[in-house]
This record gives sequence, C-alpha cells and structure tokens, in this order.
Amino acid sequence: MMYLRSLLLAVAVSQLSGVAVADPLPSWNTGLTKSAILSFVERVTDADGGNYVPPSERIAVFDNDGTLWSEQPMYFQLIYALDRVRALAPQHPEWVDNPVLKAAMDGDVEGVLSNGKAGLMEVVMVSHAGMTVEDFKAAVRDWLAKARHPRSGRAYDEMVYQPMLELLSYLRAEGFKTFIVSGGGVDFIRVFAEEVYGIPPERVVGSSIKAAFEQASGAASLRKMPALDFIDDKAGKPIAINLHIGRRPLAAFGNSDGDLQMLQYTTTGTGLRFGLIVRHSDAEREWIYDRDSHIGRLDKALDQAEAAGWTVVDMKRDWRVVYPFELE
Amino acid sequence: MMYLRSLLLAVAVSQLSGVAVADPLPSWNTGLTKSAILSFVERVTDADGGNYVPPSERIAVFDNDGTLWSEQPMYFQLIYALDRVRALAPQHPEWVDNPVLKAAMDGDVEGVLSNGKAGLMEVVMVSHAGMTVEDFKAAVRDWLAKARHPRSGRAYDEMVYQPMLELLSYLRAEGFKTFIVSGGGVDFIRVFAEEVYGIPPERVVGSSIKAAFEQASGAASLRKMPALDFIDDKAGKPIAINLHIGRRPLAAFGNSDGDLQMLQYTTTGTGLRFGLIVRHSDAEREWIYDRDSHIGRLDKALDQAEAAGWTVVDMKRDWRVVYPFELE
Repeated sequence: MMYLRSLLLAVAVSQLSGVAVADPLPSWNTGLTKSAILSFVERVTDADGGNYVPPSERIAVFDNDGTLWSEQPMYFQLIYALDRVRALAPQHPEWVDNPVLKAAMDGDVEGVLSNGKAGLMEVVMVSHAGMTVEDFKAAVRDWLAKARHPRSGRAYDEMVYQPMLELLSYLRAEGFKTFIVSGGGVDFIRVFAEEVYGIPPERVVGSSIKAAFEQASGAASLRKMPALDFIDDKAGKPIAINLHIGRRPLAAFGNSDGDLQMLQYTTTGTGLRFGLIVRHSDAEREWIYDRDSHIGRLDKALDQAEAAGWTVVDMKRDWRVVYPFELE
Repeated sequence: MMYLRSLLLAVAVSQLSGVAVADPLPSWNTGLTKSAILSFVERVTDADGGNYVPPSERIAVFDNDGTLWSEQPMYFQLIYALDRVRALAPQHPEWVDNPVLKAAMDGDVEGVLSNGKAGLMEVVMVSHAGMTVEDFKAAVRDWLAKARHPRSGRAYDEMVYQPMLELLSYLRAEGFKTFIVSGGGVDFIRVFAEEVYGIPPERVVGSSIKAAFEQASGAASLRKMPALDFIDDKAGKPIAINLHIGRRPLAAFGNSDGDLQMLQYTTTGTGLRFGLIVRHSDAEREWIYDRDSHIGRLDKALDQAEAAGWTVVDMKRDWRVVYPFELE
C-alpha cells in the first residue's frame, strides 16, 4: 500500500517536473522480488506508518560468498590460500614431503580435501598464520591486484553482484547500517570490503584464527596464529551478530544453508523484518546450483523460505545485470 | 602551532562577530592536558596539514570502568551480580549451602573473593547466564533504574564523567568513530552506552560469556551460557580491537594497567597517535588510587606514560566538573 502510494506519487512528481525519478535498483528487473525489497524499506522508514523503525535499529546483515560476490568454482579465499602456498613453496622445500601441501602446491583441491577438514585447515594455517595482520592484509591486497578468475579472466573483486551493490547503497541511503556476516575470514574480507562494498572494517564480521599481541623494537603488533578462533557459519552467525553488532538485525541477506540461522534470528524478531535468499539460477551469466552443491548448498533454507516469508531471488529472472563489468 | 593558530583565529572571529566561540570541552580546566587533546584533534583533522587522517581512520577507543564512569568501591557490574544473586536467592534455597553464593547473598565481597577467581566466576555465571540476551538486558535495565550507589546515592549510570562525555561528543563532531573497549561484559555495557555515551551497541567491545542459538515455538533467540568466551583486558584489548574494529586506533583512552597494551598498540602505529590515561587523584569529588589498588591498578602504564608520550589526566587538577549531576 505504502509502496503503491509512493510509486503513484513518484510518477506524478516525475510527470510534474518532467524529470524521471531515479530508480535506486536499476539492475533489478521489475517484479515481485524488487517490489518486496522496496516495499519493506518504505514501510520501515515511513515515520507516519505503523512499521517505522528508527535509524539506529536499521541493521542489515549480508553474507558474502555467493551473496555479494561469486563463490565458484570454489571460495575465492581458498583460491588465495592455494596460490599463497604455491608462492611460499620455494622457501619451504620440506612441503613437498607433506601430501596435503604438495597437493595445494599443485592446485589439486581434491587432493587437499581428501584428507578431510584437517587437510583444509593445514592449507589455511600455512597461508594465513605466522605473519602480522598488516602483512597478511598486504599479501591479500597484492593477490587481488594480480590474480584472475579462471573463467571470467577478471579480478576476483570485480566478480561482485551489481544488483547487490545497488541494494547496499540504497539501504544506506535509507538510513540502514550495512554489515557483512560471513563464513569467510574477517581479515581477508576487510581488505576489499570498504572500497568494493562501501562497508568499513568495523562492519565486517567473519571467521577468524587466533591472534597474539607482541612487541618488537618498541612497536606493538598482532600476529596471526595457526589455531582456529571462531567459525562464523550456521548457528555461529547469530552468535557473532550478537557479539559484534549487539542488536537483532532488521534484514538479512544470504544464499545458502550457512545463512539459515541468521535468517531465522533476524526474521523472528518483533515487528516487520526482511529475509532474502539469492538463488543461483543463471548458468550462463553466473552459475546454477543449490541443493546438491558442495559449495553454497541451499537446501534447508530453501525449504523454509516460503513458510518464513523470505524473498527468494531468482538470479536469472530478477537480475538485469550480474557483474559491474557488464556495464562497461 | 596548528592549535595556536586556530585559537588566535577563534579569538579573532569571536571578536569580529561579537559571539564567543563555544569551547568543546567546558568541563576541562585550561592547561597542558586540555591543550594536548585539542592540538591532537586539530592536527589530524586539518586537511592542509601533514598529520591529516581521513575520517574513516579516525578510530578512538575508550576503556569504560574508571575511564568513562567510576569503578569504586568495586566494579559496578560486580555490584549488579551481587544484587542479582540476592534477588534470585528466594527461587534457589539450595544456594545457602554454597559458601560462595551465601557470601554473595550477604553482600560479603571478601567472602566471594576468598575462593579466588573461581568464586567470582561462580557469582558471574549464576547472575549472567541461563537466560536469553534480551532477558539479561531487561534485568540490567531494571537494576540501573532502581539501584543506587552507596556513597553518592545516585543511579550508577549517573556516575559517568562529564569531561569524558564532552570529549566523546567533541571527537564525534570532529569525524571520529568512538568505541568502548572494556574488560566489562559487552551485553551489560550495551544496555546504557547508547543513551549515556552516545555509543551504539555495535561500537561496544567487551568481555563475554558464551551464547547458544536456540529455537522455541518458532522464535529464534540467544541464551547466555555459563562458560567464559573472551576476557577483553590487557593483551586481549588489542586482539579484540583487531577482531571487532579491524583498524589500529588513532587514539586510546584508559586508566589502568588493563589498558596498557591497548595504549601501546594504538600509539606505536605510524603517524600521529594519541594516548591518554585518567589518573584518579581526587579523593573529595571521586576517589584517589593508583599503584596499590586492587581495582583499576595503575602502575606499569604510569611508568611508561612519559617515555611513550601519553597524556596523563590529573582528575583533581584537570577536571572542573566530575559528574554531570554537579551541574544540576
């Protein structure tokens, strides 16, 4: 109702002034998905309506892998880890005797994963630990500048979703605070989140390994240690949201079963809430996968979406553009 | 230099317009401490100067107990815990057989602490765990509304420092993001930080106990569990700053050895940085304690202050007003 009224008003104003009112989501095709987003935002920001929420409580949380950027053929951070093992290998001749690290050096993901989680952890630790946070971030920055995605030939941070960039900007323009709540590493995401998404480091929540405080020649720094600290996935997401944000979000955006509890926590709060799932349905422009995928599996959350009132984005149908570089 | 120039300019402008330029820190007495604060802020915000820092990097971190509010005769959160044990005791007749909880019920702090850290932890757990985060916050809110400080007779959240409230507002007006980084419990502080300090929940970093995600009759919530998660004190402070804020702060404000590593981490960053220690030197209006105090011990950090270039506030000398209620 609110949305219809303001749409009619917008048309009236644009006719009156002879200037078209700017669409905040130009890369979203007209349809129920786009309407659901606009309607929700209009209702919680309408100071005269019964669903008004003050700006301080307009918290929007976004998963990253598969929600803000692509995650195929594997999580980009895992590609970073494998590239990093390869880059460091000349300084570690002993790694060739380690089957997991040897597989990582060869870019043999199956080989790494054949040792289960322990293999993956070994690769993550040798590529992410043992250096200061500053040095780690510099290494990721260098990698982002040079590495290219095997299919698109683009830098990984160009493989972000144009419709989601518009959504982030639109929400912030409407007084929302936008946060990333990702299973990916918090220090990794922070390297590009501010420039690419407009999300500053303090609004990035993610998984972490432990850190140690140390002092050398008068300067204090933090060294990343080879031990898990927190996995920000599944039930870990609402726990991390409470710890880092301290408020139940008003809106949550995800794409996989890893986001299920975040969606539940968000949308079972009192008053009007919003949950959205990005469904990867576009084999041509992006990828098509859901229930059977090892990466970004979307199964339980999809089953619960309708009853929970979550909006499901059909990427193929709802997105006019997928990546920003399509607009070049 | 910068400060002197702008001070002269301010005088000139005020004479020109016939209107006095507002002092952003009226409760701070004129002197070296106040000048050091103003000079630092002017230098990092002067876009034409060599020390300019963009707003996104203007991170200021504040300890809470003894830095933003009083902490005597004991941490206010500990008083909450003892009051809470007493309030819950009628529902737990078995507690009288537990020496620690019996001591807590009697308000016998010595008795609680005679069992070492284990005693303290037991009191913290029965008073802070076993309920949802929402219920915990409601209980703290109720307590704050009713409980009164034994000496001042004031609500605990009235025992905040007027000069620090002005400093928080001044820094935010100058584009800083202000954070609390406290050894106190993060969920406890969030109950009053937004209203009292203007610091929203997502900018409060603190100690925590574990939480569990649960669903009951369709609603998701988080339950506080009787297990430690993180102690945000000493070396824990820079670690938490990196995890929650993701940037080395530009300025740090503390009052005890628990803030030493936060001060070191902040002020050994590149470029101009600022460290400040509040020294409790006013027996009449507040309290006087430092090296020998069990609460808020200030010893090592005081020894290092001069060489590190940290500004030490002498509460008695530097503060014209201590508490806001003095202005009533």
